[in-house]
Amino acid sequence: MTKTLIFGHKSPDTDTICSAIVYADLKKKLGIDVEPVRLGELNGETEYALNHFNQEAPRLVETVADETDEVILVDHNEFQQSADDIDQVEIKEVIDHHRIANFETKSPLYYRAEPVGCTATILNKLYKENDVEVSETMAGLMASSIISDSLLFKSPTCTDEDEKAARELAEKADINLEEYGLEMLKAGTDISDKSAEELISLDAKAFDMGEKNVRIAQVNTVDTSDVLTRKAELENAMQKEVDENNYDLFVLLITDILDSDSTVLTVGTEKESVEKAFDVKLEDDQAVLEGVVSRKKQVVPPLNKVFG
Amino acid sequence: MTKTLIFGHKSPDTDTICSAIVYADLKKKLGIDVEPVRLGELNGETEYALNHFNQEAPRLVETVADETDEVILVDHNEFQQSADDIDQVEIKEVIDHHRIANFETKSPLYYRAEPVGCTATILNKLYKENDVEVSETMAGLMASSIISDSLLFKSPTCTDEDEKAARELAEKADINLEEYGLEMLKAGTDISDKSAEELISLDAKAFDMGEKNVRIAQVNTVDTSDVLTRKAELENAMQKEVDENNYDLFVLLITDILDSDSTVLTVGTEKESVEKAFDVKLEDDQAVLEGVVSRKKQVVPPLNKVFG
Repeated sequence: MTKTLIFGHKSPDTDTICSAIVYADLKKKLGIDVEPVRLGELNGETEYALNHFNQEAPRLVETVADETDEVILVDHNEFQQSADDIDQVEIKEVIDHHRIANFETKSPLYYRAEPVGCTATILNKLYKENDVEVSETMAGLMASSIISDSLLFKSPTCTDEDEKAARELAEKADINLEEYGLEMLKAGTDISDKSAEELISLDAKAFDMGEKNVRIAQVNTVDTSDVLTRKAELENAMQKEVDENNYDLFVLLITDILDSDSTVLTVGTEKESVEKAFDVKLEDDQAVLEGVVSRKKQVVPPLNKVFG
Repeated sequence: MTKTLIFGHKSPDTDTICSAIVYADLKKKLGIDVEPVRLGELNGETEYALNHFNQEAPRLVETVADETDEVILVDHNEFQQSADDIDQVEIKEVIDHHRIANFETKSPLYYRAEPVGCTATILNKLYKENDVEVSETMAGLMASSIISDSLLFKSPTCTDEDEKAARELAEKADINLEEYGLEMLKAGTDISDKSAEELISLDAKAFDMGEKNVRIAQVNTVDTSDVLTRKAELENAMQKEVDENNYDLFVLLITDILDSDSTVLTVGTEKESVEKAFDVKLEDDQAVLEGVVSRKKQVVPPLNKVFG
């Protein structure tokens, strides 16, 4: 029997990385042979969280079928967001908080999805259901995931359950949620050493919407104008991705984590769909979406509706 | 706000009917406005169980979107097994124990699947997780579901969890599991008043396997030869279904619940796949599959493998 691999989505964010580590911790404590791995580079925010809790990063892999028959997915289910050879292994479990699409299995499995703001919120429940104590480090990683996915509870994806779990976990991890959280989020906004290609792929997901293929990337910032000084460079990189992958639309959300607004840049033949979906006028392929911080809750559904 | 409808699959069996009733009971006790409904006629076994516990059958519906925006699925997820207009409503929850396929949502949802033998086994857990007491009637319906899906613990789909739950529930429902169970299973085997069309559709499911469209029906019996006296009539009815629905293969499993073997009848252009999948030789479109009682665990996976 080979080791079961646990991993989150491509272009990993803090929840995807930490949830893989944390669920592997729980599984090991339940006597199951697993290893957390990751499908992409860490972002600055996740590095900050792992460093703070002295946690090693999961091993980087590109494919999985060459080393295991069985995998567990956290924080995603859509195959295009998963390992390239996901269809060649058996998915034993999924722990997730997203819609279900482009996903199927040949056999019954354990699938636990809840409409909460963060995978870690569900994992915190699973420790309780299995009567396993949460360590200080695991508590810190789960709190970091919730801070990240909820932008410190400001995102409309954040539920009461998420906030309650974060406060409980912060206590166990001995951190001040607001102070630690703001430092962690800021650590993710330093883009000075990032190429445009990196910026549009660090937190990017592809979606099948109706007949269309849509890519949505997100960059957090504390200074939108600073990011926009690189607009031409970012749009060139987006156009290249559109050409190479036949995306019908590429949307880059530049999200101000202090003001909780996003500025969008758009590339692709379906740009006008953004105007329809958000009732805005694009000027020079750019618009401000007021109060929009969540790709999942505020960007995917209205675009999906337009592409229906 | 319209009432949320809860229902299981078409060609309902005891687990699908009882799980809809039971989950509606739990939801109501949690203060949520729901109604259990069903997508087809009750079989004799389910009627026996409902009568025994003085439980009314759920209301029969054909479509759902005309009366609600929100539904909860139990005991299935594949759209072709669900309401015909399932794509027009929001699926808020799924409680299931099958593979996931031909299923997708636009929004995050609560999805709880476990690789156990019966949906009711998961529901019994959900009562506990929500600290809600199980009534005598609900315990009886859940025990009946587990007896039915596991053929009194003889099916390979049956897990320790299922058996443990059934024994716990039987005590609450004040029934002798073996005695009640055998009576209930036998009640489902009386086919004398059933037409061939009814027999091949009472417990039938369609599956997309690779490029092929496969229909698999199951009839339980305590006397296989009695069922086989109607072979010609059954095969005619199967051929009619194949012609009308473009099935590539129709398999009827005649399962002896005392011996735990099944005899298969096969119709369609892909009959030889059955020979490959089970390493048997069809004689006159018929073969015995020794030790096979579970469509899900022993019939769907080997056929799926052949169709790739």
